Amino acid sequence: MSSVDLNADMGESFGPWVMGQDEALLEVITSANIACGFHASDPDVMAATMTLAVARGTGIGAHPGFPDLQGFGRRRMEVSKASLRNLVAYQLGAAQAMAGKAGGSVRHLKLHGALANMCAEDKAMALAAYEGALAVDPQIIVMVLAATEQQAAVEELGCRWAGEIFADRAYNDDATLVDRSLPGAVIHDPALAAERMVKMVQAGAIITESGKHIPAAVDTICLHGDGKTALEIARSVRAALQGAGVALEVFPGRSGRV
Amino acid sequence: MSSVDLNADMGESFGPWVMGQDEALLEVITSANIACGFHASDPDVMAATMTLAVARGTGIGAHPGFPDLQGFGRRRMEVSKASLRNLVAYQLGAAQAMAGKAGGSVRHLKLHGALANMCAEDKAMALAAYEGALAVDPQIIVMVLAATEQQAAVEELGCRWAGEIFADRAYNDDATLVDRSLPGAVIHDPALAAERMVKMVQAGAIITESGKHIPAAVDTICLHGDGKTALEIARSVRAALQGAGVALEVFPGRSGRV
Amino acid sequence: MSSVDLNADMGESFGPWVMGQDEALLEVITSANIACGFHASDPDVMAATMTLAVARGTGIGAHPGFPDLQGFGRRRMEVSKASLRNLVAYQLGAAQAMAGKAGGSVRHLKLHGALANMCAEDKAMALAAYEGALAVDPQIIVMVLAATEQQAAVEELGCRWAGEIFADRAYNDDATLVDRSLPGAVIHDPALAAERMVKMVQAGAIITESGKHIPAAVDTICLHGDGKTALEIARSVRAALQGAGVALEVFPGRSGRV
Amino acid sequence: MSSVDLNADMGESFGPWVMGQDEALLEVITSANIACGFHASDPDVMAATMTLAVARGTGIGAHPGFPDLQGFGRRRMEVSKASLRNLVAYQLGAAQAMAGKAGGSVRHLKLHGALANMCAEDKAMALAAYEGALAVDPQIIVMVLAATEQQAAVEELGCRWAGEIFADRAYNDDATLVDRSLPGAVIHDPALAAERMVKMVQAGAIITESGKHIPAAVDTICLHGDGKTALEIARSVRAALQGAGVALEVFPGRSGRV
Repeated sequence: MSSVDLNADMGESFGPWVMGQDEALLEVITSANIACGFHASDPDVMAATMTLAVARGTGIGAHPGFPDLQGFGRRRMEVSKASLRNLVAYQLGAAQAMAGKAGGSVRHLKLHGALANMCAEDKAMALAAYEGALAVDPQIIVMVLAATEQQAAVEELGCRWAGEIFADRAYNDDATLVDRSLPGAVIHDPALAAERMVKMVQAGAIITESGKHIPAAVDTICLHGDGKTALEIARSVRAALQGAGVALEVFPGRSGRV
Repeated sequence: MSSVDLNADMGESFGPWVMGQDEALLEVITSANIACGFHASDPDVMAATMTLAVARGTGIGAHPGFPDLQGFGRRRMEVSKASLRNLVAYQLGAAQAMAGKAGGSVRHLKLHGALANMCAEDKAMALAAYEGALAVDPQIIVMVLAATEQQAAVEELGCRWAGEIFADRAYNDDATLVDRSLPGAVIHDPALAAERMVKMVQAGAIITESGKHIPAAVDTICLHGDGKTALEIARSVRAALQGAGVALEVFPGRSGRV
Repeated sequence: MSSVDLNADMGESFGPWVMGQDEALLEVITSANIACGFHASDPDVMAATMTLAVARGTGIGAHPGFPDLQGFGRRRMEVSKASLRNLVAYQLGAAQAMAGKAGGSVRHLKLHGALANMCAEDKAMALAAYEGALAVDPQIIVMVLAATEQQAAVEELGCRWAGEIFADRAYNDDATLVDRSLPGAVIHDPALAAERMVKMVQAGAIITESGKHIPAAVDTICLHGDGKTALEIARSVRAALQGAGVALEVFPGRSGRV
Repeated sequence: MSSVDLNADMGESFGPWVMGQDEALLEVITSANIACGFHASDPDVMAATMTLAVARGTGIGAHPGFPDLQGFGRRRMEVSKASLRNLVAYQLGAAQAMAGKAGGSVRHLKLHGALANMCAEDKAMALAAYEGALAVDPQIIVMVLAATEQQAAVEELGCRWAGEIFADRAYNDDATLVDRSLPGAVIHDPALAAERMVKMVQAGAIITESGKHIPAAVDTICLHGDGKTALEIARSVRAALQGAGVALEVFPGRSGRV
């Protein structure tokens, strides 16, 4: 593979509370997942973030989450399928409007936090969430955690999609993430993260802790922006990929129905 | 004038709490102003309301308000111009998505509650609110309280608009509403409301308590849905207009820049 | 048993949205479980509800729930034990203040909705929730679903408590409720509900569908106020108990540590 | 005057968003005004903040604000007198519970943001807000902006109170604050702020820009914690007062009815 996208969550401030280092991160990434006001952000933060992303030419994504500001969308909630469809559609529409107002447009969608985790485990939930988005924009590119039920859902839906791997997480042999409580689960060394990403992108595969190669849709790499190390990892991954001749550009989107 | 539109607010339920008699009202009106989740409604209520309006062929409007569920958007808030633009844009985008998901589209926008009242008095506020909407959809028809600063704002912006009068409120000679605390300010008699509306529509004017005619953009009549009397007034106004040969249809929208 | 308490949830309106028939229900019950603003209610609704309860001499209870107005606290949420303690303590404090302002005081606490259901199944969760309440008021009486993990928790804590049974739900032989999807799970016949309650109160036991008697702490009967039938059931249960010579009075509270 | 209190707002984080430098500030101040969840904070943040304040022996105050997280309680809202009473009572109750859970108690109350500003201008609003607090705790000490309508209100109520001056704001000759847009309105120099505070405390008066002395209830000095300069000012004021022999201790509270 000669090109890959780099994505990160942003626009996660709320009211007077600032989170993240969006401007610095925008110099590293090619796609931004922008919070939509349910788990973080508000119309003012969205407007400011969209403006930054448009100015930079970054690919814009809606990043919907559960309606839980206090929990930052990280607490699992029991939400009906119908409500899932609606809360994703609502947030996507808000993102489209704020992107349009800033002179841009939303090209992808990525789920946030507990909503993303639940949909990675449960295809029926993923289907509902993505149906909500596709009912609003049938051409939207759904960013999925590669080799999870999220991917199974977009393949079933036949929509445009892109597969994502993590720069800073170790993988088990079944393509799931190593539990955070285990040693080595989270990678803090920028050089190691960069080296792994170059290998996985070049292999077009997730490479597990044991060294196993799992062919995967490595279209975009998830970077983080919170904490100094995260930004260092992001920069290190970017530099290493460029050094290896991998082009960094917004993913074109795959289709399950060719 | 041979035709007029009838509009009402709806979709004002929230979570488990039901408000209004939307289905009954949809048989009377031609345009619906649908709450967007800030002062009332939520993604599920919006989805259900949009579906009802699309099924009925009702003209769909976004009805944004202040972010104040407890106060139902009826408490004045000191919001900056930039925030006004953003909160209107956000809510319009959400409404567009929910309308699109239901197979329809948003063609007009009407401000709610305290936001509407403040913008009827303050053109700069109205400009900010409408700019937020027009940045999202330059073709949207802005529904304004006829002969107020809301109307001055749309004329200055040169956007598409429609003028609104109230079925159940008496007017002063300067086209403002008679204060609610005064006798006769609010009309509870369905027959009287109907008679007044036929006269104003035929005259193309607001007719004040003193009998003065103020030529006005009488494009749509605001009806209410809360309370049994309100529904009776709505039905009475509709029947009287039809009896007088006035066609009831969605307003086409005026333009300040012909 | 010669006396029993009748309890119901109330104060579940929010802002402009009215729910329930609190005044009618207050003529039937002896204890009120008053919502605290997280899943329903707001400071104004609490003030009004407390005033009604104080005027009537009804036993006042705090009725905390998950922070989810749209979902009415009926959606399960993944909340840490520490957060559980804090959200129960916070809501109890708010209730104490609003009760005090109205000239009364909070004597019991009952969990709401999904929070109650989760604590009925999971003793560790129930312990956390009740610890939050007892840290604020060690003398508070915790109302528990009889013969569930809620009861196990109060027995372990050694606090004051009261056991509750449902007027309108059928029981399995292990004291759990018959699943709502099964026929006969919910009792809609006021006469039948009343007859069952008299038998259970006199027996001091839960009587299951099969006729089995499970000795239980039948200190209070949970009535509902939403819907016309619910109020009829409430009145019917009250009348039947009085007819059978059972005194209706606020529960005194048991203690696990005599 | 041989002693004075130093107060600051704290516990203004929310969910995942951190604000302020509470631990550093707690080493400087003697009284903490702790946010109650309406304009900032949540039950978890309150619990943590109360624990810090109790450990330090800091005087604990409830710091209620308008229900506007996005606006941080800094946007004016049109709230009825009855609602004011209730929202202050509710927040005070929550604070009492969280303080009690942490082993402390709430001894004072100070209004936040736009609510404070409106009550400094409008005695009727201040009366309503304080009545809400006093209905919950008649012994609470109300912290007021000295020489404003807030002070007029506590004097009329005859409750316990303490007067506050600002360390970093210049005063006009009528005891109002110099408008922030004017040069010198906000003091950024720690040495200057400290010098002014020593003079005002020793004089028992507000000293205006023109040098005029307005005798005032200088019971506590308001310090800020946001920004590096603020903390430097706080430390500088503390050191200067100690150097001048002024004891730093929690205010005892005045009474308007001796």
